[in-house]
Amino acid sequence: MSDPTVVRGPSMRAIPEGDDRERMICADCGYVLYDNPKIVVGSVPRWGERILLCRRAIHPRRGYWTLPAGYLELNEATSAGAEREAWEEARAKIAIEGLLAIYDIPRISQVQLIYRARLVDEAVAAGPESLEVGLFEWEGIPWDDLAFPSVRWALHHEQEARQSGDLTTRFAPPLDLAAQSRE
Amino acid sequence: MSDPTVVRGPSMRAIPEGDDRERMICADCGYVLYDNPKIVVGSVPRWGERILLCRRAIHPRRGYWTLPAGYLELNEATSAGAEREAWEEARAKIAIEGLLAIYDIPRISQVQLIYRARLVDEAVAAGPESLEVGLFEWEGIPWDDLAFPSVRWALHHEQEARQSGDLTTRFAPPLDLAAQSRE
Repeated sequence: MSDPTVVRGPSMRAIPEGDDRERMICADCGYVLYDNPKIVVGSVPRWGERILLCRRAIHPRRGYWTLPAGYLELNEATSAGAEREAWEEARAKIAIEGLLAIYDIPRISQVQLIYRARLVDEAVAAGPESLEVGLFEWEGIPWDDLAFPSVRWALHHEQEARQSGDLTTRFAPPLDLAAQSRE
Repeated sequence: MSDPTVVRGPSMRAIPEGDDRERMICADCGYVLYDNPKIVVGSVPRWGERILLCRRAIHPRRGYWTLPAGYLELNEATSAGAEREAWEEARAKIAIEGLLAIYDIPRISQVQLIYRARLVDEAVAAGPESLEVGLFEWEGIPWDDLAFPSVRWALHHEQEARQSGDLTTRFAPPLDLAAQSRE
């Protein structure tokens, strides 16, 4: 390692030979970083009429409430990732029931896959990334202290799916609006 | 650039400080590559009773038939990516109708999101990555010359969704089998 105190990595922007768009390239060794959108996997875990939420112990949005979710790891199936996050953040064992929603956040190159799930038992506890966890009735959800807009979307989509019986996957932004804005 | 003929990039495997699993690190500059699963977006585009397929002009599986699909780009919504791939590979204009399936392929860290779609008009033509394109009735699909297992899964899932009217998102491997194998 030439100088371990200088960490640069792919920091130069250029179009590699045979490609059609700019990529980040390392000026030290010529390595081309084919960066990709990131996948967040999560769930809306339900115990009867109550939903599991976690109060974040980490930045961003420390102290605010969220659903268990996080980045999918290499060599991990999306449903397994959602189960892992529920365990890591809330010591919760969940059973995945279906795909509730896809939230596209292209501004930050993120795709969120949120599953419907039920808690396998009621015992939950804060993991290292949570200050506390709780099971909330709809009216008791801390609506003013949710960490991210997608937490609100998922809670409303899950409620709507359950009440209507329509278990098709939801989208944000909604698909038909997206089509209209392109026409 | 120390020696532009030697391109190594992150090629050393180690656990970075504060992390809990091995990542690829560049021995030249210390850059840590937080590699992530990749998202493939695609569609099953339908024109009446016929489905659009493309014969691949590129490796892997050159000469075999596939659905229009490819890697999601940075800052791209998943449905927009599926539309882009249909245009690039088959000069097809499609209208996305909903999420047909998620195929988890953790062995190669890939997640495929396959949409149901209809062709907006019948005019299609081979793009640069296709040798030819065609609209196939179910019986005419070149079943023995499909490029990937997921093409077969998607064709069967789409047929099943349309015939049953059940438009919930499908999974491969199926969710319930995945749960059983973990117990």
